[in-house]
Amino acid sequence: MTPQREDLIDHACLIVDGPDQSGVVAAIAALIARNQGNIVSLDQHSTDPSGGRFFQRVVFHRANFAVVKDEIEADLAATLEPFGMSWTLADLSIPKRMAILASKDDHCLLDLLWRHRRGELPVSIPMVIANHTTTAEDVRSFGVPFFHVPSQAGPDKSQSEAEIVRLLKGNVDFVVLARYMQILSSDFLAQVGVPVINIHHSFLPAFIGANPYRKAKERGVKLIGATSHYVTEDLDEGPIIEQDVVRVTHADSADDLRRRGADVERAVLSRAVLWHAQDRVLRHGNHTIVF
Amino acid sequence: MTPQREDLIDHACLIVDGPDQSGVVAAIAALIARNQGNIVSLDQHSTDPSGGRFFQRVVFHRANFAVVKDEIEADLAATLEPFGMSWTLADLSIPKRMAILASKDDHCLLDLLWRHRRGELPVSIPMVIANHTTTAEDVRSFGVPFFHVPSQAGPDKSQSEAEIVRLLKGNVDFVVLARYMQILSSDFLAQVGVPVINIHHSFLPAFIGANPYRKAKERGVKLIGATSHYVTEDLDEGPIIEQDVVRVTHADSADDLRRRGADVERAVLSRAVLWHAQDRVLRHGNHTIVF
Amino acid sequence: MTPQREDLIDHACLIVDGPDQSGVVAAIAALIARNQGNIVSLDQHSTDPSGGRFFQRVVFHRANFAVVKDEIEADLAATLEPFGMSWTLADLSIPKRMAILASKDDHCLLDLLWRHRRGELPVSIPMVIANHTTTAEDVRSFGVPFFHVPSQAGPDKSQSEAEIVRLLKGNVDFVVLARYMQILSSDFLAQVGVPVINIHHSFLPAFIGANPYRKAKERGVKLIGATSHYVTEDLDEGPIIEQDVVRVTHADSADDLRRRGADVERAVLSRAVLWHAQDRVLRHGNHTIVF
Amino acid sequence: MTPQREDLIDHACLIVDGPDQSGVVAAIAALIARNQGNIVSLDQHSTDPSGGRFFQRVVFHRANFAVVKDEIEADLAATLEPFGMSWTLADLSIPKRMAILASKDDHCLLDLLWRHRRGELPVSIPMVIANHTTTAEDVRSFGVPFFHVPSQAGPDKSQSEAEIVRLLKGNVDFVVLARYMQILSSDFLAQVGVPVINIHHSFLPAFIGANPYRKAKERGVKLIGATSHYVTEDLDEGPIIEQDVVRVTHADSADDLRRRGADVERAVLSRAVLWHAQDRVLRHGNHTIVF
Repeated sequence: MTPQREDLIDHACLIVDGPDQSGVVAAIAALIARNQGNIVSLDQHSTDPSGGRFFQRVVFHRANFAVVKDEIEADLAATLEPFGMSWTLADLSIPKRMAILASKDDHCLLDLLWRHRRGELPVSIPMVIANHTTTAEDVRSFGVPFFHVPSQAGPDKSQSEAEIVRLLKGNVDFVVLARYMQILSSDFLAQVGVPVINIHHSFLPAFIGANPYRKAKERGVKLIGATSHYVTEDLDEGPIIEQDVVRVTHADSADDLRRRGADVERAVLSRAVLWHAQDRVLRHGNHTIVF
Repeated sequence: MTPQREDLIDHACLIVDGPDQSGVVAAIAALIARNQGNIVSLDQHSTDPSGGRFFQRVVFHRANFAVVKDEIEADLAATLEPFGMSWTLADLSIPKRMAILASKDDHCLLDLLWRHRRGELPVSIPMVIANHTTTAEDVRSFGVPFFHVPSQAGPDKSQSEAEIVRLLKGNVDFVVLARYMQILSSDFLAQVGVPVINIHHSFLPAFIGANPYRKAKERGVKLIGATSHYVTEDLDEGPIIEQDVVRVTHADSADDLRRRGADVERAVLSRAVLWHAQDRVLRHGNHTIVF
Repeated sequence: MTPQREDLIDHACLIVDGPDQSGVVAAIAALIARNQGNIVSLDQHSTDPSGGRFFQRVVFHRANFAVVKDEIEADLAATLEPFGMSWTLADLSIPKRMAILASKDDHCLLDLLWRHRRGELPVSIPMVIANHTTTAEDVRSFGVPFFHVPSQAGPDKSQSEAEIVRLLKGNVDFVVLARYMQILSSDFLAQVGVPVINIHHSFLPAFIGANPYRKAKERGVKLIGATSHYVTEDLDEGPIIEQDVVRVTHADSADDLRRRGADVERAVLSRAVLWHAQDRVLRHGNHTIVF
Repeated sequence: MTPQREDLIDHACLIVDGPDQSGVVAAIAALIARNQGNIVSLDQHSTDPSGGRFFQRVVFHRANFAVVKDEIEADLAATLEPFGMSWTLADLSIPKRMAILASKDDHCLLDLLWRHRRGELPVSIPMVIANHTTTAEDVRSFGVPFFHVPSQAGPDKSQSEAEIVRLLKGNVDFVVLARYMQILSSDFLAQVGVPVINIHHSFLPAFIGANPYRKAKERGVKLIGATSHYVTEDLDEGPIIEQDVVRVTHADSADDLRRRGADVERAVLSRAVLWHAQDRVLRHGNHTIVF
C-alpha cells in the first residue's frame, strides 16, 4: 500500500524528550549500540544546555527489529527512567494511517492523494471525509474510500462530529484538515485522540480567522502566505509546523491572491504532512521542533 | 553630489492619478508627443477599468526639459483638468533630499549611507538626526552632517519633536526612520509635511507594536520578516511599500532572529527608499502601487 | 470549455513590436480610443529609448469586438506601417488550443490538467500525446483525449514525429513538453509551426543536457532549479520564459533532489504556460519580455 | 577583540570524520561524558549508513576546558583510532584569524568588517590586503590594518603572491577573497596553507569565469545568483559552501544585475564566512557538509 516503506524494514525511529542533563546522549547511543542498532541519522535540540529541555530523534537500523522491539523498549524504560525522559519507539516500515477531512476546495486534498500515489508520503490513507460530495469521484479514482458527512446546520455540530469520530476512531493515526471549512469543537479533538493538522490560508499570526485573502488585499501586503499547524482548542493558535509565502503586487486581485495562495497552501501542507509522517515534528508547549 | 543623476538630465517623471476613463492614456501620450517628449518607460494600473481609479507613471526624455517644464505643466493642467486627474511632474535629474532619523542601531542607517555613496540611491542626504550619539562618527565619515536631538523624558515629546521639525523644515523632501525607536506624534507628522518612511521589524500585520522578534519566538513562527511603510497617525498601520521574510528554525534564539531580521530590515528599507526616490510608489488610500 | 474566458468577451490583446521612436505610444493609444476601445492594462518595454526596440502589450475592452476586429486591424495596418512596427491582435475570449506531450512522468502533465479544470489556465486542451500509456487513464478522467505515439527505436525519429505532426497540425496553437523525454528534430519544429514550450529540470544554463539532478548532486550545489523555455533547434538554448529554485542540503539524496525538483518544475511550467496563454511573453532574439 | 566569544569560554567543538560504523556515536558520546563534557549541540551526517562516510560536529561545555584539552585529545586519539576516524578539537572561545583580500569593489569587504564590528562574526581580522588603495581609509576606520600589494603586470604573479604569502604566513587561520579580482596560482594556495574562501558572482556552475552578469544578461536568465566556495586549483570548481539567487526581469540592465547581484554576493559570503568560522563546514571531496 505504501511501497516506499519497504526500504525501511528494520528501521526504527526513537524520539526522546526530557530535561537536558549530562550523559543522556551517551546513554541513548550506548543503548542503541548494545541492542545491535546502527544509527542512520540523529538530530537533537536543547532549549538550554543547563536546565533546558532536550529533544532527540534517532533513526537506527536493527536486523529483525520487529522481533526485538519489546526488548528494546524494556531497555529504554530502564535506561531513560533515571533521566526522567519520555520516549516513543516507532517501526518506520509501518506507515501512519492518515485521514483527510475536506470540503469543496480540492487543491490540498488532490495534492496529498497524488503525492501519496507517487510514493512521496509514507502514510496509508484509509479514508477521506468531506462535508460536500464534489470531490467524491476524484478521491475514489485514487482508490481511497470517500465518506460524505454533511455539516449540521446551526451552531451545534455534535451530531456530524460524532459521525466523523465514529469513522475515525481506531482507524487512523492522524487527521489532516485539507481546507476543511468547519471549526471543530474541543470535544471533537478530545474524542478523536490523535494529532490533527490544519492548513490556514495566511501567514499566521497575520489575518487570523476567516477571509484572510480579502483581509490581505485590504491591508495591502506585498506577500501572502500559508501556515500548517496542529489544531488545538484555540482557533489558529496551535503549534506551527511550517509556513511559506509568495510575492504579490497591487495588480493582483483578491481572486489572484486566492489562486496564488492555493499553491502555497498545498506546498506547505504537503511538507507538514511529510514531516509529521516521518516523526520529524516534536511538540514543545505551543512550539514545534522540526528535525 | 548624486552623480548617478547626471545621466537623467532632461528626464521627467509624470505621475497621473484620477478616475479611470476612456481616452486618458491617449491624451497623456499625445501631450508628451506634442511637447517633443520621448517616452522612456510607462507603467499604469487601474483598480477597475469601469469606474475605478487610474494611476500612471511615465518617464520621458525632453531636450532642455528644465526650460520648458512650465509650458508642459500648463499643458498638463489644460489637458488633464477635463478628466478630473491630478498629476505631478518631476525633474529626475534633481535628487530628492532625504533625512534619516536613527537611534543606536546602525544597520539600516549605515546601509543607506553606504548605498548612497555607491551611487545606488538617487537622493541627497542633507542630515542624519539621532537621539543617541553612537553613530555620529560613522555618519560624518560619509560626509553627512549629524545632529543629536536627545529624546525627551516622559510622554510629552513636543520639545524634542519641535527641534527635529526646525532642522527638517524646508530642507528635506522625505524622511526615513532607520530603526528610530521613538513614536512620532501626529502633530509632528503634520508639521514636517513630507512623506515619512519607516521600517518595522516584523512582517506586518503580524506582531504589531514593540518587541516583534520576542513575540515571533514565542509564537514559534518559521519565517520572520520586515515591513517598510509610510508613517501615518495609526502606528504600524500606514501603507506598506515593501516586505520580505527569511526562514528561521527552532534552533534560532531570539538573538538569532534579531541578527537575521536585521539583514531583512536593511534590504527591505533600501528597496522602499529607492522606489520612493524614483517616484515609483503611488499612494491610494492605505495601499501603495509600486511601479 | 474554458469558462474563465467568458468574462473576457470583448477583450482584445494587442501586441506591438518594432523600432522605438517618438510618438508611437500616442499613436497606438489614439487608435484604440478612436475605435472606442477602453484600455484595461498596458505594459511596455524599450531596450533603449534611442535606437532600441519597443514592445507593448495592451489589453482593451471594445463592445462587440468580434464584429469590428477587421476594421481595427485595418486601422492598425495603416497606423503602424509608417512606424515599421509589427503587431498581432487577439480576441482574449477565445482560448488558445494547447497540446501536451508527455512521457511516463506525470507531475507536470497532471498539474496542467488540474489547473485547467480549476479554470486557472485560459486554454483549451484538445489532446495529450505520450510515448507511454501510463498516464492514459488519468488524462481521460479529465475529459481530455489521449493519443499514444510510441517512440521510434534508433536515432531516426521521423516516423513517430510525422505521426505527432499529423495529430497536431491545424489543431493547436502551441505545444507544451511536460517532461517529454524525446529530443525533437528541427524538422519537427518547422513542420509543427507553433510555439513549443519545454520544462528543463535544471537552472539553465547550469547542467545542460541529461541527468541534471545527478550532476547537481555531484557538483554539490545548494540550490536546484527548473527552467521553462521556448524550444529552438539548439537544445536547452531557447529563450527562457521562467525559472525558479529550491534550497537543498548535503543530506538530500539524488532522489530527494528529483522529488523536490519536481515541485519546482511543475510550478515553473505552469507559470510559463499561463503567461504564454495570456500573450504576456514576447520574444526578442533569444530573450523574452514577460509583461 | 571578538567579545562575542566570551560567552563561549569552556566551549569545545569536536569534528569527527571517518568510515561509518556501528558504535561510533556511542563511543564519542561516552568519551565526552567521561571527560565531564556537557553536549550543547550535535549534528551528524552519513553518506550511507552501511559502508559510507560519517561526519559529526559536537559542541560541548567543559569547565576549565583549556586546562584539560590535552587530556581529552589523548582520549580522542585512543578512542577514535580503532575506528579509523580523524578528528579536530577546537576551543570555541578562541576566534579564528581571518585575512581579507580585496580589489576596488567594497561591498563584500565592508559588509564583513561591519558584521565583525557588530559582533556577528566570531573571528579576528588581523589584516586586509588589497591590490588597490581605494578602500584603505574605510578599512582603517574599522581599526583593521590595511596592506597594499599592487598586482604584478603580466601573467607571472609570483612576486606579488610571494609578498601576500609573507604577510599571511603564520598570522591567519583562513583567507577570504572579497571580490579579489586576481586569480591565485596553485603555488600560492599550497604556500598559504590555510583554507581560502571565494565569492563568485554567479550561480555556479552557470556562468563560470569572467563577466557573469554580462553573460546572464545575454542568456536572458530570470534569476541571478552568487556562490561562495573554497578555492582549489580548478578555477570556480571548488567545494560550494553557500549559494543564493535573486529574481530579475527583462527590464533590468546589466548594471542593474550587477547592483542587485552585489546584495546577494555580500549576503552569501557573510553566511559562508560565519559558518566556516563556527566550524560548521566540513569538506568531503569536492562537496561540503554544512551543519
